Amino acid sequence: MAKAKQMECISKISCFLILLLVTFGVARVATKPNIILLFADDLGYGDLSVYGHPTSSTPNLDKMASQGLLFTQFYSASPLCSPSRAALLTGRYQTRSGVYPAVFASGSVGGLPLNETTIAEGLKDEGYTTSIVGKWHLGVGKDNEYLPTRQGFDSYLGIPYSQDMCPCVHKVCFYPNVPCIDKACENGNVPCPLFQNENIVQQPADFLELMQNYLKGAESFIKTSADKKTPFFLYLAFQHMHAPQFAGKMFTNSSIRGQFGDALNEMDWAVGQIFQYIEEAGVKDNTFVFFTADNGPSLAREIYGGNAGPLRCGKYSTWEGGHREPAIAWWPGKIKPGRTMEVAATVDVFPTLMNIVGGKIPANVTMDGVDMAPILFNDGKSNRDFFIFYPGDPNKTLGIFAIRWKEYKAHYYSHGGLCTTTHPDVVCRSNYTLHAYDPPLLYNLHNDPGEIYELNVKEYSDVMKQIETLKKSFEADMVWGESQMGRGQSPELEPCARPGCTPFPSCCTTSSFLQQDMSLALI
Amino acid sequence: MAKAKQMECISKISCFLILLLVTFGVARVATKPNIILLFADDLGYGDLSVYGHPTSSTPNLDKMASQGLLFTQFYSASPLCSPSRAALLTGRYQTRSGVYPAVFASGSVGGLPLNETTIAEGLKDEGYTTSIVGKWHLGVGKDNEYLPTRQGFDSYLGIPYSQDMCPCVHKVCFYPNVPCIDKACENGNVPCPLFQNENIVQQPADFLELMQNYLKGAESFIKTSADKKTPFFLYLAFQHMHAPQFAGKMFTNSSIRGQFGDALNEMDWAVGQIFQYIEEAGVKDNTFVFFTADNGPSLAREIYGGNAGPLRCGKYSTWEGGHREPAIAWWPGKIKPGRTMEVAATVDVFPTLMNIVGGKIPANVTMDGVDMAPILFNDGKSNRDFFIFYPGDPNKTLGIFAIRWKEYKAHYYSHGGLCTTTHPDVVCRSNYTLHAYDPPLLYNLHNDPGEIYELNVKEYSDVMKQIETLKKSFEADMVWGESQMGRGQSPELEPCARPGCTPFPSCCTTSSFLQQDMSLALI
Repeated sequence: MAKAKQMECISKISCFLILLLVTFGVARVATKPNIILLFADDLGYGDLSVYGHPTSSTPNLDKMASQGLLFTQFYSASPLCSPSRAALLTGRYQTRSGVYPAVFASGSVGGLPLNETTIAEGLKDEGYTTSIVGKWHLGVGKDNEYLPTRQGFDSYLGIPYSQDMCPCVHKVCFYPNVPCIDKACENGNVPCPLFQNENIVQQPADFLELMQNYLKGAESFIKTSADKKTPFFLYLAFQHMHAPQFAGKMFTNSSIRGQFGDALNEMDWAVGQIFQYIEEAGVKDNTFVFFTADNGPSLAREIYGGNAGPLRCGKYSTWEGGHREPAIAWWPGKIKPGRTMEVAATVDVFPTLMNIVGGKIPANVTMDGVDMAPILFNDGKSNRDFFIFYPGDPNKTLGIFAIRWKEYKAHYYSHGGLCTTTHPDVVCRSNYTLHAYDPPLLYNLHNDPGEIYELNVKEYSDVMKQIETLKKSFEADMVWGESQMGRGQSPELEPCARPGCTPFPSCCTTSSFLQQDMSLALI
Repeated sequence: MAKAKQMECISKISCFLILLLVTFGVARVATKPNIILLFADDLGYGDLSVYGHPTSSTPNLDKMASQGLLFTQFYSASPLCSPSRAALLTGRYQTRSGVYPAVFASGSVGGLPLNETTIAEGLKDEGYTTSIVGKWHLGVGKDNEYLPTRQGFDSYLGIPYSQDMCPCVHKVCFYPNVPCIDKACENGNVPCPLFQNENIVQQPADFLELMQNYLKGAESFIKTSADKKTPFFLYLAFQHMHAPQFAGKMFTNSSIRGQFGDALNEMDWAVGQIFQYIEEAGVKDNTFVFFTADNGPSLAREIYGGNAGPLRCGKYSTWEGGHREPAIAWWPGKIKPGRTMEVAATVDVFPTLMNIVGGKIPANVTMDGVDMAPILFNDGKSNRDFFIFYPGDPNKTLGIFAIRWKEYKAHYYSHGGLCTTTHPDVVCRSNYTLHAYDPPLLYNLHNDPGEIYELNVKEYSDVMKQIETLKKSFEADMVWGESQMGRGQSPELEPCARPGCTPFPSCCTTSSFLQQDMSLALI
């Protein structure tokens, strides 16, 4: 409400109505719900106990599910980390924003383009205070140009990428000094940097304390925001369950499922802590919490990776195991406890949040997400009747790999996961390179969630016609953004606490820790 | 208390004490808990919504789980029907009773030997009235010599074998006249007979009404027993989820999972009805209910069969998918709601029940089961630290196929499932014939429930030593009963409502239904 306009109408009767509107508006801001987005990494559809894993024990997430709405057909927009996060935060497929193929490296030139509107920016416009704690993985860039603080987040505490992207030197993953185990191909350069806003406060990051430190950040943000009576948005992006697995003293050897189980216990405990913080801050009844994850299990990690349950394959592939995720929505008094089999996706989070807070998405932005409100609040049908699958390495020539329409899913292309050698299902292995299917492979996901029993496309010509139409229309509307990964990487862009130090990159530390115990993680 | 003894002590003071004991004894019988054993057929570990299936909806079983104790590592003693039921009802491996290899046919000469002590017999000795409703599959034999009424059950209502063992003629599986679909190899002879005690009351059985008829029988038994204040044992052995799937009007097209889902909905509803009956009969607080199933999913049935969730293979094989089952124990006020990861098995049900009711197992019987009381009532450890896997077709020469000891499982032999051609995992297919492993394949089921990541036995020599010792000792103690299936089969033993009629076997009907609609199930 512009001050000039207030002056204009000061003596008029209509002014009363306008002032009433202003007052109502303020009151509305004050009662806007807080929003907490919990985002796990490389978590399989079958990893939580509430999703059926026989040796996981996730009481806090199970409790969240029992009090909230559990999704059984929720998709991540990408089966890979950086693209998935770009899609979550923008409500748009990664192909539009250019966050493809693969992931950002520690020295990547690119990042999530600054002209993209993120959830944080959308919520800031609605009066929210915003914070991200955890893994960013949407670029650092030159002079931190792509850090979350440049993308609508008021504050940041976290490692800006995956913990397997730092060299093994110094990495201790379990108490007291158990070295990290990583069975996959990736590797990195500078020790893992822990950022506070745009400053590195710990390098190498201490993994035994990391979750606790993240929680300290989250707790402080929640308390401060609640005290100020400002609606807040917390995006807690766990480093868990990406490899290498890690956990602090409380959770080392806490699970019968081994290192993955220990790390999962730590993440689950952290979820419980978040609920405790909102209770202590007195905002429990006015907080919407949503939990999901970026992509399916890293099968390359074998016993140190996740589990897709009944679904086929995992991370990087466009089979269900790569994309379908646990998802739980929680908001006491607003969301009825239950379970939904409606289809929804990470790109739907942004429009849903904007609806919840009464905000608007900029008119010039092409959104792929749809509002989940009918599912969340009305026990209703999804606004979404199709879903598009791009692999971890999409390209314009091949385009869409698979489409789901209603219960049917057609695969036009597929390939296996990265570094996956031992899986009994050959299509999940990395040596199952690009396969094109003409006619497409067609499955019914309702009676065949494992994508095992191929349908005869001739008997489903109406379904195929609909899918072909959707495919053409979607591809015609898809404007591929410039590949941010294509901008390359450079060692001098890797985050270093002591810029210009030597010997680079091992000198990039915040303490004398470097020389203390070189041997540890080399075992 | 013998009358003579009462007379003897009539004038003595000690007589008072004895009479008190008699009174106490009667009172004890009166408060003995009722026992309901719910036993599903061909149900996979991953089939219920509470075990993670994305498109199943089993609210009644889910509720039972939320009020009871859910097992995540519960085994059936056999991956096949008849042997599994023999083991359940006797607490002994099927190899002892001779219920192997494969299953009883409709005209089998043999059956569960009458000298075996069943749960029903054990409970009858403790003053219980006993009934079985549903699928028996432990033989019919000459003059009904192997029917449940000869094995400790006061009454029986049911089809004594699987519904795929009757010819397709007349079989309608879904409302109003949808013919049955069965993708597997089996077939049979006489139309499905519905027995009441030892009489055939309906032939062919009406599958659209079958579950309702079973429930009528169960309800009547529960009410009558409760009215008489007699403790009762109800063994409700569902024909569900064996193929062909079927369901009545209420459940036809009720599920998004197709025919399997419709049938599952009917079974789940029936579970809810049972809980309603015990509530209406006023015995809810004094009834112990246990739910589990005979073996894993019939993968041969493809979309018409079940789902093992994260476990490998299914029915007939000794991989986890063949043996591990959903299991839920329920007893309000006695069993604390929760979830246990302790190992237990169907053979443990008998000794557990005898402990619960304060009874004894005959001293001369070799029991394979152990008492589950520590798990059920004390949140404690299992009395069982190993489990033996025999396939659907065990034989004395090969012996044990696999052993689980603690979290480790060693496979000595394996083969795929029957008629399984399409599964992406080749070891589950029927053309994966007998394979011997030397050294055995070793897996850790706690961090690898899917039995994917083989351990190096050289690195686990202590584990292998323990397993080898267990194997030797178990095999040395195993007394193989005479194979009941080896006694052969004979057409004249097939249950026929009109003995001696012609043309046999199609004349075996209880009505004129035979000529009404021959075409239906032949489509």
